[in-house]
Amino acid sequence: MLSTPPPNPTRRDRPTVVIVGAGFAGVEAAKRLRRSDADVVILDRSNHHLFQPLLYQVATAVLTPADIAFPIRRIFRHQKNVTVFRSEVRTIDRERSVVRHADGTETPFDYLVLAAGAGQSYFGHAEWEANAPGMKTLEDAARIRGRILQAFEDAEAENDLDALRAHLTFVIVGAGPTGVELSGAIKELAVDSMDPDMRRVDAERARVVLVEGLDRVLPAMSEASSANAEQALRRLGVEVRTKTRVTEVDSHGVTIQVDGRLERIESHTVLWAAGVEASPLARSLGAPLDRAGRVLVGPDLSVVAADGAESKGTNMFVAGDLANVTCPGQEGPVPGVCPAAIQMGRFVGDLIAETIRTGRRPTRSFVYWDKGSLATIGRARAVADIFGGHYRGLVAWLLWCFVHVLFLIGFRNRLFVMLSWAASYILFSKGARLILGDPQSRVVKRAGSHGPRQEPMRADESR
Amino acid sequence: MLSTPPPNPTRRDRPTVVIVGAGFAGVEAAKRLRRSDADVVILDRSNHHLFQPLLYQVATAVLTPADIAFPIRRIFRHQKNVTVFRSEVRTIDRERSVVRHADGTETPFDYLVLAAGAGQSYFGHAEWEANAPGMKTLEDAARIRGRILQAFEDAEAENDLDALRAHLTFVIVGAGPTGVELSGAIKELAVDSMDPDMRRVDAERARVVLVEGLDRVLPAMSEASSANAEQALRRLGVEVRTKTRVTEVDSHGVTIQVDGRLERIESHTVLWAAGVEASPLARSLGAPLDRAGRVLVGPDLSVVAADGAESKGTNMFVAGDLANVTCPGQEGPVPGVCPAAIQMGRFVGDLIAETIRTGRRPTRSFVYWDKGSLATIGRARAVADIFGGHYRGLVAWLLWCFVHVLFLIGFRNRLFVMLSWAASYILFSKGARLILGDPQSRVVKRAGSHGPRQEPMRADESR
Repeated sequence: MLSTPPPNPTRRDRPTVVIVGAGFAGVEAAKRLRRSDADVVILDRSNHHLFQPLLYQVATAVLTPADIAFPIRRIFRHQKNVTVFRSEVRTIDRERSVVRHADGTETPFDYLVLAAGAGQSYFGHAEWEANAPGMKTLEDAARIRGRILQAFEDAEAENDLDALRAHLTFVIVGAGPTGVELSGAIKELAVDSMDPDMRRVDAERARVVLVEGLDRVLPAMSEASSANAEQALRRLGVEVRTKTRVTEVDSHGVTIQVDGRLERIESHTVLWAAGVEASPLARSLGAPLDRAGRVLVGPDLSVVAADGAESKGTNMFVAGDLANVTCPGQEGPVPGVCPAAIQMGRFVGDLIAETIRTGRRPTRSFVYWDKGSLATIGRARAVADIFGGHYRGLVAWLLWCFVHVLFLIGFRNRLFVMLSWAASYILFSKGARLILGDPQSRVVKRAGSHGPRQEPMRADESR
Repeated sequence: MLSTPPPNPTRRDRPTVVIVGAGFAGVEAAKRLRRSDADVVILDRSNHHLFQPLLYQVATAVLTPADIAFPIRRIFRHQKNVTVFRSEVRTIDRERSVVRHADGTETPFDYLVLAAGAGQSYFGHAEWEANAPGMKTLEDAARIRGRILQAFEDAEAENDLDALRAHLTFVIVGAGPTGVELSGAIKELAVDSMDPDMRRVDAERARVVLVEGLDRVLPAMSEASSANAEQALRRLGVEVRTKTRVTEVDSHGVTIQVDGRLERIESHTVLWAAGVEASPLARSLGAPLDRAGRVLVGPDLSVVAADGAESKGTNMFVAGDLANVTCPGQEGPVPGVCPAAIQMGRFVGDLIAETIRTGRRPTRSFVYWDKGSLATIGRARAVADIFGGHYRGLVAWLLWCFVHVLFLIGFRNRLFVMLSWAASYILFSKGARLILGDPQSRVVKRAGSHGPRQEPMRADESR
């Protein structure tokens, strides 16, 4: 409404800490400033904090969006030094120490925590996004859920065998945790939920293809867990294609390259779970970036000074997926996973709190504590690498459930997620099979249950 | 995918019953054909059956969309003579006995049940819809939820007092059950959920105005219940304006007319809950319609023959909100409420089943059994007219809860709705405060909790 900034309503004898992004890193940093004599301003594009690790369950109709999202203001209801604004931040003006919003207005800061996370990377093929959507926000997940469910709708109404096959073929690109979890969950959705409700097609024969460029699934985990996960996926009926690159994506499917040979997969549902690209906000910092666009920060996660001198550190910090930092004695940069974001957020929050309290900036280096990693492959199957040990099956799956429910914010969310899992895994009932949006009917609608039933996909065709 | 109809896959020795619309009437009609030797084809724009009476709770963040929607196929999982297609029906070709879809394809029928319901009527002011959305689908409700919550976001970031007041003013047009329930729920959302989370504005002083053209709220209920409901609304803090007509709606608010005087209410959130208009599908039937576009059906709910002769009845029936029928001995046409739709659906389903079974069409008239009506006004307040008695307060509210949970389809939905109500009404915590979509930030974002706090809306200004 206002085109010019109003007079500053804050008392300037207290420093202002601006946190951009209310993901794991941003929320944790704000919490650590709880007792700090500072105004904390949280800026986020959404009004909710999102529990990203369970996003794939929204896409596969196990959970509803409200189960894995929590209003940011609600998190800080009792932390009175926090003010939350819903806003899209466009640039950071380092010279003037202000954050510039999409509407042209500005917010000044004394300290900045940039925790804006990462989006999907298409490795230079941005045009693939329309036909192979990625999954970073709740809106993405709800849209993907609609696409997956609509594919079954289209299949049920289809009379052409080739088109039917394409409707019931799902291609997932990238076999990291998201790709593995998504492909397992789609196959289970087809077999357990859709198949009993369909009259004209055998939905259980849906073909789910998981494509990975490297030589194994879950390449960030141990080789033992990769092997276990691949075996579990195959047993579930997922077609695992490692050492396979995608060379083309269009509205009718994908072209993949295996050992130099090109192969075409006709599919109306291609989902992208490969590669992340840092928020474009990082570029406005004027700091060195890595190839994925992440900020190469100093050992205390601060943005290095414009002249390259790291010694003192600036008043700007980067935490979470947007930061590229290599800890002393550790191999490679800290991975873009949820525990790392939490640890970085806490580290930065503590550092700023101490600086404000003591009046001098402590010298400290961030050290990532790798507690291990987990991935799930459908009902009662998972793999875990913890403290050098490799676990699989029910034990790993229960551990996965426990860890994920534990970190969900809010009593209500925990309760509802557990109940949804119980309904989904025990009663085989998906609670959130909603397609929102307009119908796109394609073919003739006829009762088919008693006619000369058309030949559905046969098992040998779907392998 | 196919541009020409494929060969008919159904055996034509069994009749096909096509049901358009899977609302209460359509679902009940299909269930009554359970044991019938017929192919039942259900066509709906959505993949889900919607429990419309609770739509306002999705709009006010008490329930999530999945709580009040249930996949249509899932309802008929075990009724094998039902095939469901997601499709938008465009016209009924009465001459050829086929239903024509939006994609140009067709479905032939032996019997038709048209149960496509009603949309919002703007009484000739279709241009008001953009600024005063109505609430008929889940998409509508989710969009309205986003608008209501975004109004609080905008208020929190606003520095101009007039604009702030407009952000925190909500106008609901029409004081039927939906308008009454919506206005009470918005006021409660502001007071219980938003106010404790806001730093710069007193959200509890949000102004909620309920506008009604007639002389009382809930005009379809008893005068005693109207008076009780109005009193409860006022006590909650809702501004009730009866005998008041809306003469203009634009993006900045509404103009209302009271006793010939015009009055302007500045508001960024105007919601429409007045008047329904029958589905445009009715027009293609070539049958007589009433002013609201509903089909004037015969006493057995069948579409009257083209020559006006009702004696024999056609093979086409209308059920639910789309039908205009006056029962013998009853005053005025059957109202467009959920129990009426259920009763009509069952009546038509039974009639078709008997016709198919016996080979001759029975002569029977639909009789509406009015079991009474209920409306709720926020937590633990409701009014009920049942068998001549008028009830209010906690008793009426518990009855309302019981009836609504009872009629929800699916065990999971019932459980989750009850838990959500418990969370919302006991813990004062709304579980679904999600805004989906892009942010539209408007003003400068600054920490405001410790600055010279700007004057929020004062109590006397908001009355």
